[in-house]
Amino acid sequence: MTSNICDGETINVLFYGFGAIGSVYAFILSRVSNVRLTVVARSNYQAVKENGLKLISQNHGENTFHPANVIKTPDEAPGHYDYIVCSNKAIGQEAVAKSLAPVISESTTIVLIQNGVGNEDPFRAIYPQNTIISCVAWTGAIQNTPGIVHHTKNENLQLGLFPNPNVSTEIEDKRLNVFSELLSAGKTPHEVFSPSRLQTARWEKVIWNCAWNCLTTLTRLHTHEWLNSSPEAMNMTRTLMGEVVTVARKMGVDIKDDLIERLMKRILGMPSIGTSMLTDALCGRQLELDVILGVPVKRGRELGVDMRVCETVYTLLQGVDLGLRQGGPRST
Amino acid sequence: MTSNICDGETINVLFYGFGAIGSVYAFILSRVSNVRLTVVARSNYQAVKENGLKLISQNHGENTFHPANVIKTPDEAPGHYDYIVCSNKAIGQEAVAKSLAPVISESTTIVLIQNGVGNEDPFRAIYPQNTIISCVAWTGAIQNTPGIVHHTKNENLQLGLFPNPNVSTEIEDKRLNVFSELLSAGKTPHEVFSPSRLQTARWEKVIWNCAWNCLTTLTRLHTHEWLNSSPEAMNMTRTLMGEVVTVARKMGVDIKDDLIERLMKRILGMPSIGTSMLTDALCGRQLELDVILGVPVKRGRELGVDMRVCETVYTLLQGVDLGLRQGGPRST
Repeated sequence: MTSNICDGETINVLFYGFGAIGSVYAFILSRVSNVRLTVVARSNYQAVKENGLKLISQNHGENTFHPANVIKTPDEAPGHYDYIVCSNKAIGQEAVAKSLAPVISESTTIVLIQNGVGNEDPFRAIYPQNTIISCVAWTGAIQNTPGIVHHTKNENLQLGLFPNPNVSTEIEDKRLNVFSELLSAGKTPHEVFSPSRLQTARWEKVIWNCAWNCLTTLTRLHTHEWLNSSPEAMNMTRTLMGEVVTVARKMGVDIKDDLIERLMKRILGMPSIGTSMLTDALCGRQLELDVILGVPVKRGRELGVDMRVCETVYTLLQGVDLGLRQGGPRST
Repeated sequence: MTSNICDGETINVLFYGFGAIGSVYAFILSRVSNVRLTVVARSNYQAVKENGLKLISQNHGENTFHPANVIKTPDEAPGHYDYIVCSNKAIGQEAVAKSLAPVISESTTIVLIQNGVGNEDPFRAIYPQNTIISCVAWTGAIQNTPGIVHHTKNENLQLGLFPNPNVSTEIEDKRLNVFSELLSAGKTPHEVFSPSRLQTARWEKVIWNCAWNCLTTLTRLHTHEWLNSSPEAMNMTRTLMGEVVTVARKMGVDIKDDLIERLMKRILGMPSIGTSMLTDALCGRQLELDVILGVPVKRGRELGVDMRVCETVYTLLQGVDLGLRQGGPRST
């Protein structure tokens, strides 16, 4: 299968967002000879433009790669792209979708490698003729220095279509398969899911993120410290996750009964960790709040789910986020 | 009335906790000629020992006063005290009560000038023969430099008995009246309340503090920024206060129907403020959490009140408090 891809015509791929996760998957695609990579880099633009991206990976060793084109905004390289991979933090998703207009044509497939749920909706609304591939990354990577990404052993991408009734199933399937083949050719573990199973994966991950990202950010504790901080912390975490499970099920997403216990077991089997949202808060950066907690809360409201714990946490985090956008913690 | 007091025998008064509020009321009593003041100072011990306490007050002008005795712990000056004023932050109330044993005899009246509810219980349990005067201070003061306290125009003390069935009403009333006369002689506005009205005052203030202290601390925003941070913030604040109102009423405390609206109106009529709890969090100090939110939540649980917003906020703040006790916000 992969020979098919590797021997074919040039495949133009644009990565929007060249943070840690984007860098890992851009590296994976950079290994495929006929992929031509364009990356939209922001905070690390200068470093990547000058020295390329250095990936220090426990799975793939140390590699420096140079995308064919490093740009600051999509305007700088308008044209046709076969795949646009959004690996940016999902903040202001609608504005980002609009800004991609110069690089999206009807045959462009939009690939979302982002945390959260509901991420596809603004893209579907603005680009109703395009194929969307939705991905859940379970990949551990961090970029402490611009242009230098450390990748742990964690590496898995779950992907599936966000089906478009305006595009034939055959074409959508082909676009999904080609992207999967690129990942195979780039030698990264991944799983192709049905659309409904992929949504289950998104919600499962969002339930994970709702708990750990939000609760560590509000308390400024790492995961295990949080869980042990009071007799109530563990139960409150379960209640919060349970509220999101109820919303997901009411939306028709298939969430298994043992999910919460599996997630609790998983976190307790790991070392105590800070989360990406806590890191953002401590660094004074805006939070990826809406796709993680905001969408579940809004869907819950529409569906009449009692989700007072989520609502409370969401309201508090909107306050935290406002403070960060206004320049970080105030002194009194 | 006051001449009675001023001309009489020496009245020994010990202040435990010589922060901003303790300093204001110690200053008030220092104006009464036959009061002999002992103060237990901690962080400002050296400054006060050497230079006295400088109070810069919008109501009383600039004054420096020297307590007769400045000590670090109650052990240093055992003996008989007519009044022991606890003006410390109400953290570890039981341990503080125990540590006061060397200075409490049966005729000592314990005066609590502290935020919170339930503050009297550990004292009543350990000293069942003593009179307790419970006070609610609406006095604005801050000590940014050890030994130098700035006092705003806000100044009012509401006081009343926490009635002791083991002591005759006549004796309890007399002890309350003498303390009130000392406040009059020291020229500070105050109101003597019946025991039940005083508990109403304590709960009214705790409802105020539950909202502003807790929500500003979790979000690190000042009051008005918090209230405007999202469409939900105002309502969530009302819900939180409403849960505490329900608990208070179930306990038999008389809370008027319009309290929440009065408190909202009051906060919106003031400039946006940071709170003492937010200041503590930003300075890495332990939070005065249990008497402010912990007691209402525990009473609510006992009484079967649904208080999920308070529970969530309390659980989160216990996490924040743990982090502060362990040395402040972690970097990741």
